[in-house]
Amino acid sequence: MSGRVAATVEIWFEFASTYSYPALSRIAAAAAAARVPLRFKPFLLGPIFASQGWKDSPFNIYPAKGRYMWRDLERSCVRLGLPFKKPSVFPRNGLAAARITVATDEAARPELVSRIYRANFAEDRDIASREVLASILAELGHDVEGTLARADSPAVKDALRAETERAIALGIFGAPSLVVGSELFWGNDRIEDALEWAQRTA
Amino acid sequence: MSGRVAATVEIWFEFASTYSYPALSRIAAAAAAARVPLRFKPFLLGPIFASQGWKDSPFNIYPAKGRYMWRDLERSCVRLGLPFKKPSVFPRNGLAAARITVATDEAARPELVSRIYRANFAEDRDIASREVLASILAELGHDVEGTLARADSPAVKDALRAETERAIALGIFGAPSLVVGSELFWGNDRIEDALEWAQRTA
Repeated sequence: MSGRVAATVEIWFEFASTYSYPALSRIAAAAAAARVPLRFKPFLLGPIFASQGWKDSPFNIYPAKGRYMWRDLERSCVRLGLPFKKPSVFPRNGLAAARITVATDEAARPELVSRIYRANFAEDRDIASREVLASILAELGHDVEGTLARADSPAVKDALRAETERAIALGIFGAPSLVVGSELFWGNDRIEDALEWAQRTA
Repeated sequence: MSGRVAATVEIWFEFASTYSYPALSRIAAAAAAARVPLRFKPFLLGPIFASQGWKDSPFNIYPAKGRYMWRDLERSCVRLGLPFKKPSVFPRNGLAAARITVATDEAARPELVSRIYRANFAEDRDIASREVLASILAELGHDVEGTLARADSPAVKDALRAETERAIALGIFGAPSLVVGSELFWGNDRIEDALEWAQRTA
């Protein structure tokens, strides 16, 4: 494959999404190892779930599925060597974190995004809180006030709405989702398949 | 690990379930290679879905998820070298096939079950039809009339109802599911994890 450039993989994620935690914690390294260009695409699942008649996470609406998910997520984190602590509140509203991600340069997104997921799913911190997000931005050396101001701007709000509309148009119904050309892959379990697809369809 | 006997894996399946097709086509060989004892447990998803308010497959109720599933299933079959043809009717009622499986000795189940899945998902045959099931039993050298008669008996009907009740008690909410002791694994993607768990918890 040397000399060929792989197709780009878009990773679509929602900060409330549980399986997005292991996915976003490992995908940057996996894509780099596979030499696959990666783009980080935050979006909101809320409007998509609402259009299906769900006003809450399906993991809360369907308790057997929810109980399974928490245990499966814990096992997955153990396998990956990731810290995990079941959040005391689920789902946490990912809107503010998504806007901050949109307000951040693509190059800085991998580190920022995985750090926010860790706050939610390993440290049980409230990622809907402006203070928590500000402390993460500061920890990573970002311009805290500038980023928060951009995140509140109409341009960023509109951009995030447009991304969510594009997610729907792409057929996305859950997170994480991966898009390679016209192919859609859903779930942390499909990262390797999506990267291989990108390598083959360069 | 030599000398140790692995824990038993129960594979719980419903004949209407799409991802059960690749799972039941490959699990017998995978379990044998891992030296893990395997038990085949047919059950019915209908009562479980009905208790969640679903009167149809969630893949029909949620069209974006359904469109994705058919494409993902096709890709999975290509990867595994399995023939695939999208059934013209979905879901097909798996009740008769489940009763026939319950009426069949454990040793004969792996071949019978994978053959019935192939009829549904690679040959587009109606596995709710007594004639289709009779032809499969004949092809595999079973006692056709004796098996069909046992499948219609109150003992087999009661046994299948009891298995579905046990599935609910185990926390099963979809198919295929794998049970190893008190651990539940869901999906074709979790076969390897379940087999490893059985090896570790012998």
